[in-house]
Amino acid sequence: MQTIALSDYTIYVGPIETGWQEFLTRKKYTQILVIADENTQTHCLPLLIRALNGQAFDLIHIPAGEQHKHIGTCQHIWQQMLNVGLDRQALVINLGGGVIGDMGGFCASTYKRGVDFVQVPTTLLSQVDASIGGKLGIDFGMVKNSIGVFCNPKAVFIDPAFLTTLSTRELRSGFAEIIKHGLIQDAAQWATIKGISQLDTVDWPKLIVPSLLIKKHVVEVDPFERGLRKALNFGHTIGHAVESFALETSEPLLHGEAIAIGMVCEAWLSQQQGFLSTADLEEISAFFIQIYGHEVLDEANFAAYLHLMGNDKKNEGKKINFSLIGAPGQVHINCSADADTIFASLRYYQQLAG
Amino acid sequence: MQTIALSDYTIYVGPIETGWQEFLTRKKYTQILVIADENTQTHCLPLLIRALNGQAFDLIHIPAGEQHKHIGTCQHIWQQMLNVGLDRQALVINLGGGVIGDMGGFCASTYKRGVDFVQVPTTLLSQVDASIGGKLGIDFGMVKNSIGVFCNPKAVFIDPAFLTTLSTRELRSGFAEIIKHGLIQDAAQWATIKGISQLDTVDWPKLIVPSLLIKKHVVEVDPFERGLRKALNFGHTIGHAVESFALETSEPLLHGEAIAIGMVCEAWLSQQQGFLSTADLEEISAFFIQIYGHEVLDEANFAAYLHLMGNDKKNEGKKINFSLIGAPGQVHINCSADADTIFASLRYYQQLAG
Repeated sequence: MQTIALSDYTIYVGPIETGWQEFLTRKKYTQILVIADENTQTHCLPLLIRALNGQAFDLIHIPAGEQHKHIGTCQHIWQQMLNVGLDRQALVINLGGGVIGDMGGFCASTYKRGVDFVQVPTTLLSQVDASIGGKLGIDFGMVKNSIGVFCNPKAVFIDPAFLTTLSTRELRSGFAEIIKHGLIQDAAQWATIKGISQLDTVDWPKLIVPSLLIKKHVVEVDPFERGLRKALNFGHTIGHAVESFALETSEPLLHGEAIAIGMVCEAWLSQQQGFLSTADLEEISAFFIQIYGHEVLDEANFAAYLHLMGNDKKNEGKKINFSLIGAPGQVHINCSADADTIFASLRYYQQLAG
Repeated sequence: MQTIALSDYTIYVGPIETGWQEFLTRKKYTQILVIADENTQTHCLPLLIRALNGQAFDLIHIPAGEQHKHIGTCQHIWQQMLNVGLDRQALVINLGGGVIGDMGGFCASTYKRGVDFVQVPTTLLSQVDASIGGKLGIDFGMVKNSIGVFCNPKAVFIDPAFLTTLSTRELRSGFAEIIKHGLIQDAAQWATIKGISQLDTVDWPKLIVPSLLIKKHVVEVDPFERGLRKALNFGHTIGHAVESFALETSEPLLHGEAIAIGMVCEAWLSQQQGFLSTADLEEISAFFIQIYGHEVLDEANFAAYLHLMGNDKKNEGKKINFSLIGAPGQVHINCSADADTIFASLRYYQQLAG
């Protein structure tokens, strides 16, 4: 069991039953409510039940998938919370990926103006991305995460056993955030990462813990995203737009798949602005194509991407804001680009195809 | 212009144009959004526009009334915020009574995980009750304020000029919270209050400022309602139930009217538990009946009231929790009563008729 102590909660990395027993020595709750989706109910709940060791709980079941991360599902969750008579001394356990963590955390932190919750992230993406930073929320009005709050969980339990329930595609999605953490803050971690050629032989906990330590540093320096924390948006301005657009098609992309595209485009913007060398850009692009392959983007949709970027939370006034990279491990926040340059970055990605 | 400084914001009591100019010397915003209802748009917006002194703003208009304080109206507000391209550096001004303040504040503090907002309370109730404490939220699933957050505004502007737009019934509703503040924390303020026999001659600012100072003390001691702040719930366990029930009928009660009934019932509970003398109970009851008259409650609805109390946020486990009073100025939190005793308190109120 490794633990990472943040200012007001602890991340337990290891078997959940060990972390849970340690957590319960500090906190007592009158009632436990588990939020799960159909996947985590089948594949992950048995492990949680074993950790709970006979303790009673209520279960709220929601449909799986980003397309259900909306206010209608929140209403279902809040109503179930009222129905089971959840009081302010209860604990909510969010068992699942980013959708369950973001939406279950948002519902817990707004139910009766806030009940305690813990995160049990079951995907690689949520283990490395959603465990730190307290960002909670839902998609609204076609805009990702446009409604939400900042609120920390009381603990996070990262059990590598859950990773065995994931497909290679899901592991690859989570890997994108690990790559991002290396590129923006830790050249040594990037050097390790770029040596990886296939995912089925990776020792994940060895990558997860350093990645969490990078994110911890960034978020502790800047909890409310006024400065350094914006570094975490690298790849996300374009990536979110690509993801939001794809969500409405018959072939949605996983978060990390879209962010991988965004990171290639934004690495090109970084090179155009003179922050990143051409050699580094080429190395980064080749690595992403090797791991993620190449997605064909239709130029007819570029204007729609731009519109989606216009509604991005990171914009101040009306310009499109980016967090770009310098040499690996270095970041430049509060950059901007105009529409033509953004389109050119998408065309750069396009021409990387075979 | 009087100012009351709280830990992270200031309440300006006096002409809004003076307070606004002082506020703007500390904060700059790229964009202003005003949330108003049909009443405040007609009666209060002109005064605000004069204070804004030519500064541009967008306006979101919502229907007036507690029955619209629900998630559907929030969705309308959030969508309008997206439509006007509201960014994180914008300021939201909530112009109205408790509904606008609670719901507009909730929408602002959850839009893009939080934009700054200020409160411009235009009713006596919201001036004395909602200005301090950061409680924001909406009604959900038939339960008042069941969804919300704690989040402070960046400033509150209390302009007595708005009180001239109110009916006597609305003034009387706000007066209930002023009475409550006296009863729970300040015997001298109660002594002043009980000398009042009619509302049209009251000098409101002279009552508002001491009332705000009482609430400031209580909330600063206990911002998250773990202890002393529960004192503010005096009258509200029964009062909220009476209010929620009446909201679904053709004759809804104003908040303060329902809380006045709740305070009489809970004063009786206080006397039954030995905290309050019979003489004090009789004086308090007579004062409330003199100011508010007497509302006939139907005993057939008592079970429904109890059910509504069972869903009250103040309960831990399943017992019904009360904040009761001792001699005026003293409070006893974490009290409880069973169903029969609660019914008897409602019957005590009943027999005060004529």
